[in-house]
Amino acid sequence: MVQQVNPPRGMRDFLPGDKRHRDLVSETIAQTYRRHGFESIETPVMEDHATLHSGLGGDNEKLSFQILKRGLSPEDISGASSSDELSDLGLRFDLTVPLARYVASHHQDLPPVFRALHIGPVWRAERPQKGRFRQFVQCDIDIVGEWGALAEREVLLATSDALGALGVSNYRFRVNDRRLLQAMLTRAGVADDAQMSVLVTLDKLDKIGRQGVLDELEERHPGGVDLGVIGEVLSAVESGDIALDAAVIASLMGDEEVAASLVEWASDLQSLLGADKVVFDPTLVRGMGYYTGSIVELEHPELGVSLGGGGRYDGMVGRFLGKDMPAFGFSLGFERLMDVLDASTSDDSSRVALIYSPETKVGALLELKRSLIAEGKSVRLVVATRNMKAIFERLETEGFHAVAHVDGDVPEANSLQWRELASR
Amino acid sequence: MVQQVNPPRGMRDFLPGDKRHRDLVSETIAQTYRRHGFESIETPVMEDHATLHSGLGGDNEKLSFQILKRGLSPEDISGASSSDELSDLGLRFDLTVPLARYVASHHQDLPPVFRALHIGPVWRAERPQKGRFRQFVQCDIDIVGEWGALAEREVLLATSDALGALGVSNYRFRVNDRRLLQAMLTRAGVADDAQMSVLVTLDKLDKIGRQGVLDELEERHPGGVDLGVIGEVLSAVESGDIALDAAVIASLMGDEEVAASLVEWASDLQSLLGADKVVFDPTLVRGMGYYTGSIVELEHPELGVSLGGGGRYDGMVGRFLGKDMPAFGFSLGFERLMDVLDASTSDDSSRVALIYSPETKVGALLELKRSLIAEGKSVRLVVATRNMKAIFERLETEGFHAVAHVDGDVPEANSLQWRELASR
Repeated sequence: MVQQVNPPRGMRDFLPGDKRHRDLVSETIAQTYRRHGFESIETPVMEDHATLHSGLGGDNEKLSFQILKRGLSPEDISGASSSDELSDLGLRFDLTVPLARYVASHHQDLPPVFRALHIGPVWRAERPQKGRFRQFVQCDIDIVGEWGALAEREVLLATSDALGALGVSNYRFRVNDRRLLQAMLTRAGVADDAQMSVLVTLDKLDKIGRQGVLDELEERHPGGVDLGVIGEVLSAVESGDIALDAAVIASLMGDEEVAASLVEWASDLQSLLGADKVVFDPTLVRGMGYYTGSIVELEHPELGVSLGGGGRYDGMVGRFLGKDMPAFGFSLGFERLMDVLDASTSDDSSRVALIYSPETKVGALLELKRSLIAEGKSVRLVVATRNMKAIFERLETEGFHAVAHVDGDVPEANSLQWRELASR
Repeated sequence: MVQQVNPPRGMRDFLPGDKRHRDLVSETIAQTYRRHGFESIETPVMEDHATLHSGLGGDNEKLSFQILKRGLSPEDISGASSSDELSDLGLRFDLTVPLARYVASHHQDLPPVFRALHIGPVWRAERPQKGRFRQFVQCDIDIVGEWGALAEREVLLATSDALGALGVSNYRFRVNDRRLLQAMLTRAGVADDAQMSVLVTLDKLDKIGRQGVLDELEERHPGGVDLGVIGEVLSAVESGDIALDAAVIASLMGDEEVAASLVEWASDLQSLLGADKVVFDPTLVRGMGYYTGSIVELEHPELGVSLGGGGRYDGMVGRFLGKDMPAFGFSLGFERLMDVLDASTSDDSSRVALIYSPETKVGALLELKRSLIAEGKSVRLVVATRNMKAIFERLETEGFHAVAHVDGDVPEANSLQWRELASR
């Protein structure tokens, strides 16, 4: 019987060339982060149902793949009133919830300020569509236990170096602070229960423009929002980058202390990375409910796409640990980066092929292969066929660097005649 | 509310030191295999239910974690008579079934002889016990499309080099062939339906000894097994290594052609690796039902444990592809290797710490950190506290190589005073 041979819906196999490129990008990012003092950790792909559904994952909780309990009897199944009763585990939908659980579990074995690097797949049962997958890689760094704003500086500096190592120079960090948004909403007289809705509208500025935002606020919250305050903020954004000046930001948003702290760390980053690399954006909201302070989005202005984001979430680890623990994290958009990066960077000049005739002595051929490997080459053996043209074309397409022939008697490694292949 | 903070039952978190060691071992193996011409691939962790439960996984199929269908209504649940009706996907329990599905799906994009390297986690809902986990890493190489016995030679040579790169020199490959076992059973007059049962008893030789095997065969198959034939094989094993001689093996087992072919590839490997590294074992069975020819087990004679195994499974890819496709694969026991290897090999002399006083200017500190990273160091920032002894002890335990202090004014990188830390 011939079976269905595709991967499950919304999930991907990776061919060798793509896998090589993904591994190279992942290893480049990881190496840079490790040099910046981040330590790789690993958690299981599954978490207990209670951990995944603790309200910290927002809408993503609804998208989690649930694992059936083992050994269910027919009575267990017919007696169940919802799928939650049939499932005790689920696949993680992000790496932040598992990190918080991990830190709570192991804090006695971790340094007081812990810099975590967590790269791995996550799963979301989203409707499959172009560029969206049900299994995809996340690449997170987090600093847990650092009360000051050193965390913001270290995380974004390390991320900037990782982008540099990948050859990505056209990017900028848009920064804001949840407490500044809060202060602005208070200044605009927005009631507590209307705040999320107002922020959702504010977030649409680049889609519907200044007047669109004001119209939507008027329509949804008639009389409930001081449009003068909001209008001033929108005008400031539309007239170009807002100066990283504590007085300017405080007058716009309304919290002097938070404005001063944001300007302090963001200016340090401007000095380190260049002034154009960090910009204050009072309309940056970011979706996750758990952010409590600084929020950041990494954008590629030319492509108009987000390459990642993060923020401070001081309450989350405490949910598992039972005591307060500050945290600032950033998630680099690995899949988005793979779209942006050029695959040719993963070409490896050590890859060569030995084409041997069928009568070649296999033992001697393997001795030769072994001595080429000892020289640092990666060696593929290819048996000669009548269609040599097809063999060469395939090797070129796969990015092989050179080929040599072995006919009958196997020569020494140093007397092989190498022929370079045309690059793709 | 404080939540449960442990990973799910039978699964593990990895602390940074363990993760570093696992990554180093995994990367060492992968790099060696890549040089031997194997290409990394990746498949999703989930496969469709029909793929996982196609009868190729043997007993492991029963251990698979099943994923609940999304959007089940209460009626869907109460109307289901078994958990299979509630699940459309499952987590892979090995990497061989996904490889066979992958090759069938992508064979037009792969070279005619495809050497695959597949490293990744698999899941089995086994009863948790010491050294057994519900999520663990498998590390497989396979050669698909090679009809001769070059595959056996290349796979075992590459594996031997991977072990060498890890510093493991005390190992040997026990080899046999399913067709020799078959020939021997035919010679001993065993009926087809009794063959599996006889092999299971034969496999117990090292536990119950020669007489134990003969007694059990007599008890379970009275008159159904020619004990003279079996006794001769057992005596040959017990009297020491059997010569890799086609005539000797043919007379013992009964198939001249297969004996000659086995001796040919196994002798080539003896020449390449050393005579003590390959031994013929006529009682080697290996459990998986899908093996059709050569079978191999990698053992560490000193520790008496298996470090991996593999074999030829010419029918499996064909189940998905619809036409015959030969394959030989080997699975290195990653978790077992981690038990055997010394963790100190993962120490990294580039790891240093900068201890800074709380009044240090953060911007200048980050400049300094960055210049140390540019020199190739991995840098952790640690704020000074009154308990410096605890800081030093932690850094030593974590394997840091050196520390330097920064007090107030931040010096240039080249005027730092490094102090080496005692190794663990």
